Amino acid sequence: MKLPAVFERYRAEIDRTLKSVLAKRRLPLYDMMRYHFGWLDEKGNTLPNSAGKAVRPTLCLLACEAVGGDYSQALPAAAAIELVHNFSLIHDDIQDDDRERRHRPTVWSLWGKPQAINAGTAMRVLADLTLPLLSKNGASLEKQLRVQYLIDDATLRLVEGQYLDISYESQFEIKVPDYLRMIEGKTAALIACALEVGALVGTDDEGMIHSFRDIGHNLGLAFQIRDDILGIWGNEAETGKPLGSDISRRKKTLPIVYALEQAGNRLRQELVNIYRRGVVTDGDLATVLRILEEVDARNQAQKMVEQYCRQALQSISKLALVPSARRDLEEVINFLAERSF
Amino acid sequence: MKLPAVFERYRAEIDRTLKSVLAKRRLPLYDMMRYHFGWLDEKGNTLPNSAGKAVRPTLCLLACEAVGGDYSQALPAAAAIELVHNFSLIHDDIQDDDRERRHRPTVWSLWGKPQAINAGTAMRVLADLTLPLLSKNGASLEKQLRVQYLIDDATLRLVEGQYLDISYESQFEIKVPDYLRMIEGKTAALIACALEVGALVGTDDEGMIHSFRDIGHNLGLAFQIRDDILGIWGNEAETGKPLGSDISRRKKTLPIVYALEQAGNRLRQELVNIYRRGVVTDGDLATVLRILEEVDARNQAQKMVEQYCRQALQSISKLALVPSARRDLEEVINFLAERSF
Repeated sequence: MKLPAVFERYRAEIDRTLKSVLAKRRLPLYDMMRYHFGWLDEKGNTLPNSAGKAVRPTLCLLACEAVGGDYSQALPAAAAIELVHNFSLIHDDIQDDDRERRHRPTVWSLWGKPQAINAGTAMRVLADLTLPLLSKNGASLEKQLRVQYLIDDATLRLVEGQYLDISYESQFEIKVPDYLRMIEGKTAALIACALEVGALVGTDDEGMIHSFRDIGHNLGLAFQIRDDILGIWGNEAETGKPLGSDISRRKKTLPIVYALEQAGNRLRQELVNIYRRGVVTDGDLATVLRILEEVDARNQAQKMVEQYCRQALQSISKLALVPSARRDLEEVINFLAERSF
Repeated sequence: MKLPAVFERYRAEIDRTLKSVLAKRRLPLYDMMRYHFGWLDEKGNTLPNSAGKAVRPTLCLLACEAVGGDYSQALPAAAAIELVHNFSLIHDDIQDDDRERRHRPTVWSLWGKPQAINAGTAMRVLADLTLPLLSKNGASLEKQLRVQYLIDDATLRLVEGQYLDISYESQFEIKVPDYLRMIEGKTAALIACALEVGALVGTDDEGMIHSFRDIGHNLGLAFQIRDDILGIWGNEAETGKPLGSDISRRKKTLPIVYALEQAGNRLRQELVNIYRRGVVTDGDLATVLRILEEVDARNQAQKMVEQYCRQALQSISKLALVPSARRDLEEVINFLAERSF
């Protein structure tokens, strides 16, 4: 499975914009960010490629093009959104005690948690400091302020989602609607923001802008549920995450929430007992996988992924979009529904 | 020693503005913030007063009045600055492993570090979300964007200062200029921002706005050095911090940096040895206090406080300000130079 070509199209410009935000910032604090983005190794040597797929900025620029805008105008907003996403990854790794991401040691595992908190927070502020470039690129002050508001609001919802995600770890009465509320914040809010902001920079058509927000919302839910599937059944070499890592971290991902709802009393209790214990052994992992299989959790989760993607594709089919960008968007959505990494 | 009356004058309106920012936010995440501000106890019961002196928002509103502005226009900015300050306290307590602040358990010690990171980050975002009220209160979009930029820039410098503060813990060649660079970020940047933003909301006179930034810079340096003195010799009942707490945390505060520079080889080595050990005993604490006394560190630090305050007062004396506000400003500066809490 390959990344669609559109991810390659914007990549160099996204990276250039991100690098320009960090240019002239000399404190080692900023090298922690450069390391996180995959531009530097642990010793500060330059690396050729960036880490991550840059899903959110790509969606942002694609939305801008799809509504007939000039994507280069949206680059500062796309970069800001990628900074918000990556700030949340740095803090998320601290909160979850994760030592590896994208096959590399996490920022906190190299520099310690106190300094990693600083790196994440500073990265979030850099997102805001990138936005004045929007009006320098020709956007009105009103639009710049609106983009700022959308990004702030999405960040707040993202942190709320993180809050719920962590608080669910010690709760066992979580139902699918609770789960959806959590991922709406944790994941869908920023993806919806990426598409809305891209459309906003590209057009004044409020109906169109609103539709892109909805598309992003559905796509975001699909994206996270697919992520949950990969977090349990994904290939470690492809995902960069250890097999069953979400189970070891006792996360209430969709397959688990579904199993807690659907499993009979005995299996449900078995699952709860494993999740209640501090450490998840290989044997526990096998038990959880067996319970998930019995309730058909993987297929049910994938059905939800496809349902949300279908809704996004239907919304797109009703809009008057630039044809080539429409095809790219459709390709990206289909990729995200089936992705293995 | 009493808080000058001007701190009382704005207090109710600052609190009302802060509370309105948090109104209708129902997630328990926001109760963590209400607890931090002293509006709720650990169980969620309402408390009558707020925690903290609200130095920064008070300075912001006073600057606005001093240049002839209407302070109520600056309330959203003052609240945003107080939110930035308090986000940094929540994260700072996590980073320094501090279990108490203002005679109460810190947020992380009650809710755990992962959720306290979320509370701090969300509080920082709320600061941004408060700023659109500026243009609703009559400020131009240009001014609102400029305030946003100043607050973002100050936050970034604050985090840079935090980065240096933590990185200095393991360094012993820190000189006074290194120390000043650290507190310029950690403390002076946000106090300078408070005064500059207050003046900016109140006037279009660029010279005046610039002067208030300078005044805030000097006042911020004085404020932090006075804080360092209280962190070693302060009265626990008044400061809310255990005696010698900055020494136990092995912080490179001004008296220590001064002693590292001024002490002879033997005393210097004794100091370094104590700071290198993981745990500081009561005996170590007594040794450090003796070394500080030998180099006259407390008096030297207080001289610096007074020098920076004098510079701030001199700048104020040269400006054409509203007389009553000028007197209040002078009173606040003199209080901050001598404060015991």
